[in-house]
Amino acid sequence: MRHFLNLREHSPAALRALADRALMIKRGEATPGAIKGRTLVMLFFNSSLRTRASFEAAMGRFGGSAIVLNVGSDTWSLETRDGVRMDGDAPEHVREAAAVLGRYGDAVAVRSFATMRDHGADFADAIVRAFAAYADVPVISMESASEHPCQGLTDWVTMIEQLRETRGRRFTLTWAPHVKPLPMAVPHSAVLAAAAAGMLVTIARPRGYALRPEIMATARQWAAAGGGSIEETENHTDARRGADVLYVKSWGAAFADNAGPVNNPNLADWLVTRDHLGQDTRLMHCLPVRRNVVIADDALDDPRSVVIDQAENRLWAQAAILDAVFNAERGA
Amino acid sequence: MRHFLNLREHSPAALRALADRALMIKRGEATPGAIKGRTLVMLFFNSSLRTRASFEAAMGRFGGSAIVLNVGSDTWSLETRDGVRMDGDAPEHVREAAAVLGRYGDAVAVRSFATMRDHGADFADAIVRAFAAYADVPVISMESASEHPCQGLTDWVTMIEQLRETRGRRFTLTWAPHVKPLPMAVPHSAVLAAAAAGMLVTIARPRGYALRPEIMATARQWAAAGGGSIEETENHTDARRGADVLYVKSWGAAFADNAGPVNNPNLADWLVTRDHLGQDTRLMHCLPVRRNVVIADDALDDPRSVVIDQAENRLWAQAAILDAVFNAERGA
Amino acid sequence: MRHFLNLREHSPAALRALADRALMIKRGEATPGAIKGRTLVMLFFNSSLRTRASFEAAMGRFGGSAIVLNVGSDTWSLETRDGVRMDGDAPEHVREAAAVLGRYGDAVAVRSFATMRDHGADFADAIVRAFAAYADVPVISMESASEHPCQGLTDWVTMIEQLRETRGRRFTLTWAPHVKPLPMAVPHSAVLAAAAAGMLVTIARPRGYALRPEIMATARQWAAAGGGSIEETENHTDARRGADVLYVKSWGAAFADNAGPVNNPNLADWLVTRDHLGQDTRLMHCLPVRRNVVIADDALDDPRSVVIDQAENRLWAQAAILDAVFNAERGA
Repeated sequence: MRHFLNLREHSPAALRALADRALMIKRGEATPGAIKGRTLVMLFFNSSLRTRASFEAAMGRFGGSAIVLNVGSDTWSLETRDGVRMDGDAPEHVREAAAVLGRYGDAVAVRSFATMRDHGADFADAIVRAFAAYADVPVISMESASEHPCQGLTDWVTMIEQLRETRGRRFTLTWAPHVKPLPMAVPHSAVLAAAAAGMLVTIARPRGYALRPEIMATARQWAAAGGGSIEETENHTDARRGADVLYVKSWGAAFADNAGPVNNPNLADWLVTRDHLGQDTRLMHCLPVRRNVVIADDALDDPRSVVIDQAENRLWAQAAILDAVFNAERGA
Repeated sequence: MRHFLNLREHSPAALRALADRALMIKRGEATPGAIKGRTLVMLFFNSSLRTRASFEAAMGRFGGSAIVLNVGSDTWSLETRDGVRMDGDAPEHVREAAAVLGRYGDAVAVRSFATMRDHGADFADAIVRAFAAYADVPVISMESASEHPCQGLTDWVTMIEQLRETRGRRFTLTWAPHVKPLPMAVPHSAVLAAAAAGMLVTIARPRGYALRPEIMATARQWAAAGGGSIEETENHTDARRGADVLYVKSWGAAFADNAGPVNNPNLADWLVTRDHLGQDTRLMHCLPVRRNVVIADDALDDPRSVVIDQAENRLWAQAAILDAVFNAERGA
Repeated sequence: MRHFLNLREHSPAALRALADRALMIKRGEATPGAIKGRTLVMLFFNSSLRTRASFEAAMGRFGGSAIVLNVGSDTWSLETRDGVRMDGDAPEHVREAAAVLGRYGDAVAVRSFATMRDHGADFADAIVRAFAAYADVPVISMESASEHPCQGLTDWVTMIEQLRETRGRRFTLTWAPHVKPLPMAVPHSAVLAAAAAGMLVTIARPRGYALRPEIMATARQWAAAGGGSIEETENHTDARRGADVLYVKSWGAAFADNAGPVNNPNLADWLVTRDHLGQDTRLMHCLPVRRNVVIADDALDDPRSVVIDQAENRLWAQAAILDAVFNAERGA
């Protein structure tokens, strides 16, 4: 594995091997030895708490070091278009920035969110793709417009940890209200992970909030190959009932034509409460979560919520990813 | 010792042991071995120069690593109230943030200044207390509204280094003018340290600038138990005369009802000059210091000023604190 | 070598030894062993991508650690004048900041750009000089108003790598257009490096854009001693023809009296294109570069462009500098 830009361009088998390896590292049964002595350059176009801290912790814990560069969405930008006369805001082209940072680190990790303005352009993941093209080292996405693959792999790790066998288990992704429209990267990767895991996937979301068709197509293909299934519904009550995993996430209708606002009062009953948890349901969310807007206190504070374990697993999933890309680099 | 949130909830004996250990580490007679291989997560709600650099230096020098997260007071905030519907500015509750960061690090250090708007709420140290409640690892305060305990321990270290025997020596804390009202965390911890050290403490400050009564009560109790004393005066001339330690600090009358502004021309003679130093006085200040507003050049540049040694001791005091909390964690 | 504040206060022979050492480190023929276990404190008054990442990479790769402090040009400032009453924006004097940071690190690296408002004051490099005066450890300039010495040494390293023998080879520094006036630190150090390397130096720039006379005087002296030469011309076409190294850089006429704007349409033909490259010309630029404003795509993407190798060499040049200052410190 050279780059780790998303889940959809890897095979379910390769992702499963990474997830298993992450759990072995967590239990102390394996060591990500390729991290030792390596340098990871992390470039953030958007702010981060968990992603940054968990990557730094993974590098530091296993003997590597991390260089963190906060670009700041307002203060500096990289030109991604070819052939333009660069007399605007961007003082540097991504070709140079990627090539240079690739000389300073053994891998480069990049976060560049969806702009939410041009959905087609967002989905092309220009910044992350350009880094993969121009840096001479492995590139890891720390979330782009199309996916949040480190989160998606973490979700799979967490479901294996919680359920042991994931095949044939019920995974419900449920949309939730929010104060503003959010990108779709997290639900995209979560659905792909559940499909790759052979789960019976239900996506509950209001009319107009469909996920991106390209992602759904891959998820359906993976589900079919792995013994799982994909369904979509606008009825959250039925969808939540009996779920082994209830994965809650809000997203704006970023790629849809006629969606309403995410804080539409008519959608207020999409809030997830303890009443929606079955006896053995595990409640998952990528965090941060707005309490009593997205999920009610009584659900989040219930023992069936595994959101803290899920967040911890970022560390272990990323240790497995780093080990894999550094090993591939060493072999190249 | 599990957490290090303030001085007042530890015993003078335990604090003295830490101070002695810091000096042994400084002299190379002891090694804070528990730091090796450990990760400290540092979360700043307010900016920092000395605190951040000295913690990072302590971790790096003894084989650990530090993760620094600058929250920024304006860009992000954590909800601390329970049960609220989080539809405002704060995208995350401190319950989740604390629990997650505790999974990534072996200890979490937090800085959260007084808001200076609601004194009672400030003194409750909600952010730091929430981290201690929800993170599953030791929590260290890098300054909250009520105290700056790492500074206070450093001050004690510095006084032992300078005076050898502190019991019965004269410690004068003197208020000084400033361009804006500052929090009381530093003078609170300094007075507690001097009281714990058995010193004859005098607090010189204008009418209306009393320190917080809870802090004064503990200081009086410690002084009584340790052979020292606590006095307050509005006459800075008498108070400074003959001091073994002249500790200068400005603070706003944050918890007082009828204080005037800190840059009141009537208070300009509270500026500390070389004339206020006795033959053997040590001049202390936590830095940063506004020259010729708080302390005059001739005093700061005098050999009796130990402010640079005092700042260096942050490194050694914090090495001792880190070693203690990591050791306790290991034993738990 | 105690401090590394600029090129002009070192001897060409000492700088050449550093450049050779950098190449040996790059090739794995030498190890900068003095970096191991050391702490570098980096203080940025201006933002940075390459400088910060390459210094952190050099420290991390060879077993040291780096503490990065971003002062931010707007949010905080250090007073540099002596004797003033500090009742303005600056909460701390450089005397204290330098002395304290010197206690936390084994060396301090500082970046403080030209203000472009007061050219004489800029050239005095007050911040960097104050750090050298008040920190008790070696100080490295990461660019001040007068020079960017780490870049200049890197340029020399790159030219040795590319040309093997630099004496008698043709070095052309050519001014280029930009969207705003930039400081002269980079061209100053580049010209000094080329002069020290015994090259035939031509500086092509519009009328009114002369470099600082003090720098030119040193460059002429070094060129005379080393078998090289210094010429200045306003004719970029002749200057570029036959250059072994074409070094492109824009600068504002910061120290000149009657210069026009850098984006003057009459100067648009100073843009460097592939047509300006001779068969064996190496194209150099310190980056970041605005494509098609400063250098055209066809030149930057030509195999004769060595800008990425040049940027990589920052890492190796700085490893040599750090090793030298830490070794000197150890010997002191």
